[in-house]
Amino acid sequence: MLPEYSAVLLRYGEIGIKSRQTRRRMVSLLVKHVETALKEAGVSFSCTRTDFGRIYVETTEAVRVSQVASRVFGVVSVSPVVVIDSNLDTILDVGSAMAAASFTRGRSFAVRASRVGTHAYSSQDIRERLGERILEKLADFDLRVDLRSPAQVVEVEVRDEFAYVFGETLPGVGGMPMGSQGKVVCLISSGLDSPVAAYKAMKRGCIPVFVTFDNIPYADEACSGVAVKQAAKLAEYVHDYQVKVYVVPHGTDLADIVSHAPYRMTCLYCKRNMLRMAREIAMLEKADALVTGEIIGEQASQTSRNLRAIGGAICDYPVLRPCIGDDKVDIEHLAAAIGTYQFASEGLSCCTLPPKYPVVTADIDKVNEAEKGLDLSILKTQVSQARVVFLKEKS
Amino acid sequence: MLPEYSAVLLRYGEIGIKSRQTRRRMVSLLVKHVETALKEAGVSFSCTRTDFGRIYVETTEAVRVSQVASRVFGVVSVSPVVVIDSNLDTILDVGSAMAAASFTRGRSFAVRASRVGTHAYSSQDIRERLGERILEKLADFDLRVDLRSPAQVVEVEVRDEFAYVFGETLPGVGGMPMGSQGKVVCLISSGLDSPVAAYKAMKRGCIPVFVTFDNIPYADEACSGVAVKQAAKLAEYVHDYQVKVYVVPHGTDLADIVSHAPYRMTCLYCKRNMLRMAREIAMLEKADALVTGEIIGEQASQTSRNLRAIGGAICDYPVLRPCIGDDKVDIEHLAAAIGTYQFASEGLSCCTLPPKYPVVTADIDKVNEAEKGLDLSILKTQVSQARVVFLKEKS
Repeated sequence: MLPEYSAVLLRYGEIGIKSRQTRRRMVSLLVKHVETALKEAGVSFSCTRTDFGRIYVETTEAVRVSQVASRVFGVVSVSPVVVIDSNLDTILDVGSAMAAASFTRGRSFAVRASRVGTHAYSSQDIRERLGERILEKLADFDLRVDLRSPAQVVEVEVRDEFAYVFGETLPGVGGMPMGSQGKVVCLISSGLDSPVAAYKAMKRGCIPVFVTFDNIPYADEACSGVAVKQAAKLAEYVHDYQVKVYVVPHGTDLADIVSHAPYRMTCLYCKRNMLRMAREIAMLEKADALVTGEIIGEQASQTSRNLRAIGGAICDYPVLRPCIGDDKVDIEHLAAAIGTYQFASEGLSCCTLPPKYPVVTADIDKVNEAEKGLDLSILKTQVSQARVVFLKEKS
Repeated sequence: MLPEYSAVLLRYGEIGIKSRQTRRRMVSLLVKHVETALKEAGVSFSCTRTDFGRIYVETTEAVRVSQVASRVFGVVSVSPVVVIDSNLDTILDVGSAMAAASFTRGRSFAVRASRVGTHAYSSQDIRERLGERILEKLADFDLRVDLRSPAQVVEVEVRDEFAYVFGETLPGVGGMPMGSQGKVVCLISSGLDSPVAAYKAMKRGCIPVFVTFDNIPYADEACSGVAVKQAAKLAEYVHDYQVKVYVVPHGTDLADIVSHAPYRMTCLYCKRNMLRMAREIAMLEKADALVTGEIIGEQASQTSRNLRAIGGAICDYPVLRPCIGDDKVDIEHLAAAIGTYQFASEGLSCCTLPPKYPVVTADIDKVNEAEKGLDLSILKTQVSQARVVFLKEKS
């Protein structure tokens, strides 16, 4: 029988190479988010501890804790662990029992061990003696030792008076704890790319404020609802912060563009206006940057030349485009992993305006010149009319 | 014996969903780059053909063609193929011979088939009859059919009078053909991130112009050489375009910053100046955008707040940051795959200036105010003194 797991060990990556002060702040943020995520999911745990570059969650629900914690930004990997005292005999008993309960016959294995503190034995002693004990105990298992690329492992981490024994390490979402960076305004459409872009910025520690634009009468009525659903899915990755989405009307300025701007440049003016409205919200929210889902060459409006024509609309906030160098297939895989793929594929008509032959190499002077005929004051009005949907309250 | 490969089949991904006109232009670019890459590598081939959404390279060196072509941007995957006539008996003979030469005993297999044109048999006929033939011919192989996730396959693509038989599909680098987008100025340091960022923009079709800044006297003399080596590695992915790197002196403006700007904001002013010098080069080169290796939270100068303070230095070119939402570990893996990891890990001291306690939440007004004391005219002078290294001539 597998010895009972009594804790889950969480590993963080880049946080570990920060200065002592920054590291301390980030680990404490991460612990807070893990605790909140567990409470939100209704998973019970008795306490969390941080020690020697690890976070330990003591729990009788190790599998569920592993599932929830592995989806908190900053967690690089998780292992359900058996916590025992650091007596070598106990380690040999529990380590070999774990092998007996989890190993498959006929495959290679290794024992891994590390040690911090003062003990009567070395890490190498653990590796050798536990390896021998496993071979003895499972003599009929036809096991062989392979230190380089074993098919199965038992790992032992000895830390002062405790030892942690485990056989499994599951990947976490990685990144940095949310709130280690400032707020960013994430532009979300009903498409596939923008939620992935938001996710990537969030994963690096930014707190999202979502904005979506309602293109009615140039879109299916359901479109902004799809965008809100995508934002709600992303909100599941946010713990300890309020999450809201601004649904900004975008029909009046589009009508103005249709009437007064060159037809083949419709998408450029639309995107310039979206950036300007997002900028208004960034000022309201005291955000540091805007985040868009643009990918070079993915659409006619996203050629390198057109990105310049669009980006020039705002100057005092950086536009972060985390998907800019990705392939569509990478975005699809990530969207599936995040959980937004299902919404994006609903296939509504969310803008009826794109011209059949759009300009792909916009001349920035001509863009600026033709824009003089547009009424940009509409934009502030539309932002003031935004509907704000609260997706999550601060815990 | 394995039937002899006489061609390599190249697949492209996103190109396939472009409009007919764009697709035709992109496929023709891709074919040109593949041919140039093969010539540069000294690999012989008799001709290339495009047909039914595929590119075929006819060659007696299928393995080497596969290696070279799989590293051309736009190629999603490659398969060495045996080209035969589309007679069903020939397909059964060659398909079963391929299975005999390549299959491993005791594992599952499947036959996959597709067909375009008029033939006396269906794709399903190929799958069934070739499957039966393989089971007969390899009766002592203990094979079993698994259509969903077979361990090994034989694939047949019938296209009018030809049939292509293959068992292996290798991944390509993906992306879009270089030159399907405009030029971008890629800022390259001796570090790990910036070459990966340049690679990602290149992979999406942008033509790179490399720029590196020589921090002497605040750096080891070898640093700019390391950056040039990284650019030279990236130049291996460029075919049919000239590649150059501008090595721009960056010591005089740094001395000015050290003397006149607040010490804790040194890195912000340095980066603002680099963007400004890169912008000068973008104008010279008629580029569309700048590309940097910034990652949110990777360094003190890359907090969301500081990205705003830095990005505000230029307005009329977008700054593309393809790594902005990536984890360091992802960058490390990609750098290793690209071939730039080895250079970046040389570990020189490439800037001696970073303050111990840098500002991480720069106030943009204070940044602008203190910048008034700097002499920005130095920047144009430095750009005019740049040394230009030609890494590759247009084929």
